[in-house]
Amino acid sequence: MNFVESIARKRDGAELRPEEIRAFVAGATAGTIGDEQLAAMLMAICLRGASAEETAVLVEAMRDSGACWRLAEDFPGLVDKHSTGGVGDTVSLVFAPLVAACGVPVAMMAGAGLGHTQGTLDKLATIPSFRVATTRGEALDRLAACGVCFAAQSDEIAPADRKLYALRDLTATVPSLPLIVASIMSKKLAVGAGHLVLDVKWGSGAFCRTLPEGRALAGALVSVARRAGVSVRALVTDMNQPLGDRLGTASEVRAAVDVLEGHGDSRLRELTCELAVAALTLAGEAAAAAAARVTEALASGRAREALDRVVEAHGGRPDFSALAMPLASVDVAAPRAGIVTAVAAEELGWIAVELGSGRRNREDLVDPAAGLVVHARIGDRVVEGEPIATVELGTRRVDLGAIVARTAAAFAISDDDSSPLPLVAARLDGTG
Amino acid sequence: MNFVESIARKRDGAELRPEEIRAFVAGATAGTIGDEQLAAMLMAICLRGASAEETAVLVEAMRDSGACWRLAEDFPGLVDKHSTGGVGDTVSLVFAPLVAACGVPVAMMAGAGLGHTQGTLDKLATIPSFRVATTRGEALDRLAACGVCFAAQSDEIAPADRKLYALRDLTATVPSLPLIVASIMSKKLAVGAGHLVLDVKWGSGAFCRTLPEGRALAGALVSVARRAGVSVRALVTDMNQPLGDRLGTASEVRAAVDVLEGHGDSRLRELTCELAVAALTLAGEAAAAAAARVTEALASGRAREALDRVVEAHGGRPDFSALAMPLASVDVAAPRAGIVTAVAAEELGWIAVELGSGRRNREDLVDPAAGLVVHARIGDRVVEGEPIATVELGTRRVDLGAIVARTAAAFAISDDDSSPLPLVAARLDGTG
Repeated sequence: MNFVESIARKRDGAELRPEEIRAFVAGATAGTIGDEQLAAMLMAICLRGASAEETAVLVEAMRDSGACWRLAEDFPGLVDKHSTGGVGDTVSLVFAPLVAACGVPVAMMAGAGLGHTQGTLDKLATIPSFRVATTRGEALDRLAACGVCFAAQSDEIAPADRKLYALRDLTATVPSLPLIVASIMSKKLAVGAGHLVLDVKWGSGAFCRTLPEGRALAGALVSVARRAGVSVRALVTDMNQPLGDRLGTASEVRAAVDVLEGHGDSRLRELTCELAVAALTLAGEAAAAAAARVTEALASGRAREALDRVVEAHGGRPDFSALAMPLASVDVAAPRAGIVTAVAAEELGWIAVELGSGRRNREDLVDPAAGLVVHARIGDRVVEGEPIATVELGTRRVDLGAIVARTAAAFAISDDDSSPLPLVAARLDGTG
Repeated sequence: MNFVESIARKRDGAELRPEEIRAFVAGATAGTIGDEQLAAMLMAICLRGASAEETAVLVEAMRDSGACWRLAEDFPGLVDKHSTGGVGDTVSLVFAPLVAACGVPVAMMAGAGLGHTQGTLDKLATIPSFRVATTRGEALDRLAACGVCFAAQSDEIAPADRKLYALRDLTATVPSLPLIVASIMSKKLAVGAGHLVLDVKWGSGAFCRTLPEGRALAGALVSVARRAGVSVRALVTDMNQPLGDRLGTASEVRAAVDVLEGHGDSRLRELTCELAVAALTLAGEAAAAAAARVTEALASGRAREALDRVVEAHGGRPDFSALAMPLASVDVAAPRAGIVTAVAAEELGWIAVELGSGRRNREDLVDPAAGLVVHARIGDRVVEGEPIATVELGTRRVDLGAIVARTAAAFAISDDDSSPLPLVAARLDGTG
């Protein structure tokens, strides 16, 4: 089989045969297909799409390009959670200890920040000595010690995804539903939890700009998970404004601690609890009992204690007072009185990146001290001059005047009444 | 300007700005844009298309990626002729001396065989010591000596096209109207004749399978030529069976000599004469006078004499009896009696390539002795056992039984009446 013929078939809208898809993935992994041919195939898939069958074969081939940890063999009730990426989204750091405190083990693959979103890997890196698992043995050790494993995508997990992802970034082929599904699901299946909770963001701050796009991505992910024998529940959630009120790596760790201590941001707490209930029901609990157990784990402080164990099991020191703090803070004033009608999540995400909480280039270092605090949310009434956000400065040199102006401009304030969109817009069930 | 953004814009169907197209071509030429990004852009153009404006800018940028010979500055009446590639098509070797004998200088960029078609460059190479021009100085010398210049695409002419063409071959992005137009026209404009005659093939043996595709390609080529100030005439011609009756490099040179000596294949003669008349009218002659002059140049033997001067001016020896001859010939018999309803031009082209008249791989040598003679044409009545084709063997080892069977199968013979399609299906004029 000549790979040029496969490219030509996809170019013309044909359905690729399983062996053609496997040859594509094998060639990408081994480097035997040139980058120019891989790129042409990626663009053809991006523009022609892929069927459910093609997507499923692609996922399986990418999963099998590296090691499969099969963690569910040792931890049968194991739950994995994945978010498609949001702003002010610290759910993972609350979810993992909370669900573990309810008796259900959790494994998650943490990624570095991407574009305007802050990554869980970068947040965990602000905790002194914290080390994520990169092998099956390390994952099992952490799960045995604390019921939670945070892992990173090493060379051994889905190497085809690493190769193709780097190419997609260079070739403007990131926004392709089947390629996104394959990238996410190949890694989930390689880790091998039996239950999967998905948080698919939709809105102006998310990859899926519209609710139908979010539903479509959630549906495709659920379908691939079910086909692979994974029980799954997907929530399509609001990313038309930042989820929590803090952006920045160390700041978001503190935001997670706050929620686990019973205070903290209410939207962040509400979404995390719903995802935790979904995880417990996947693991076999009835919905009402699951909700009660989650509430109790938070109220009793057991979830907060679980966080300390998670940090210790990952080699870290559970002293959150040692986290980096901003070197200076600058309040951004409301330019007028009125009701907040929009908070541009993506723009705030990019501002936080600019301040140092993310990478503009691959070689950039993340500054744990830098970030933003969002005080005004959609539907809030503000008076002129009141702080609507606070810029938290780290060591990176920035044009503060420009940052403050951009931050203020990210808030739309009007005389009209406005209320936030529902936090959870849709729930997709894939256990049946 | 980030090239990923340009790829993304074309992916989404936007029209690229001139500076984006120029950056694409400059990056391809200098090697500063990676092959994976070039390939993604090529596939996006292949699937999204390009506007007339985009195509024109692409042509100009590719033309300007290397030397521009501007031959019309020294030979104001200069005519160029281009064919999109056919089987049994020896027009160039008749056209050039014929038009020169009528007093109009001719410059042509000769290419090597591509796919199932034999290339003019490979045919000229069968003439001992023949050397095509690769620099402006060599082109001018040949034109001054004989009124004809055969040139080859060297590194100095349109290097962006060489780079992109090689990538298109690897990435299944050859069949794209704007990319084909850009590849053809960038080279034509770099050579710089003021008049251009185009022979756009359509049919089962051509790149354009249908007449509308042929018309569309002709229209796009004419439009770009006019925009560049070149007067142009395009013929859309039949390639639903081989044009002439011979396939093979030395054999096609002999076929050209035959036509110039007043005998030879009638279809080949008819089309060449119409193209020659088009050339003369572009150069300023009235249609009737042009036709009379072409007829006279053939009948008087002046066109045949011009061929000797063309060969000598290119360093060759005009002794056509020295051309390679087949080592053995095998007649292929009609398997039944009836009327020929189809002659599969592409298949016969591939058989000739298999015999040695073309390259299956880039490093293959062409065997000048190998080829095919086609005796039966569409509409001919044949009796069972009568030779419908002759296989001419060179030195390459072949499975003769399979070749004979494939050759016989390339002819459809039926009891139904059948007649060939018109040789010229459409004429597009771009002088106005």
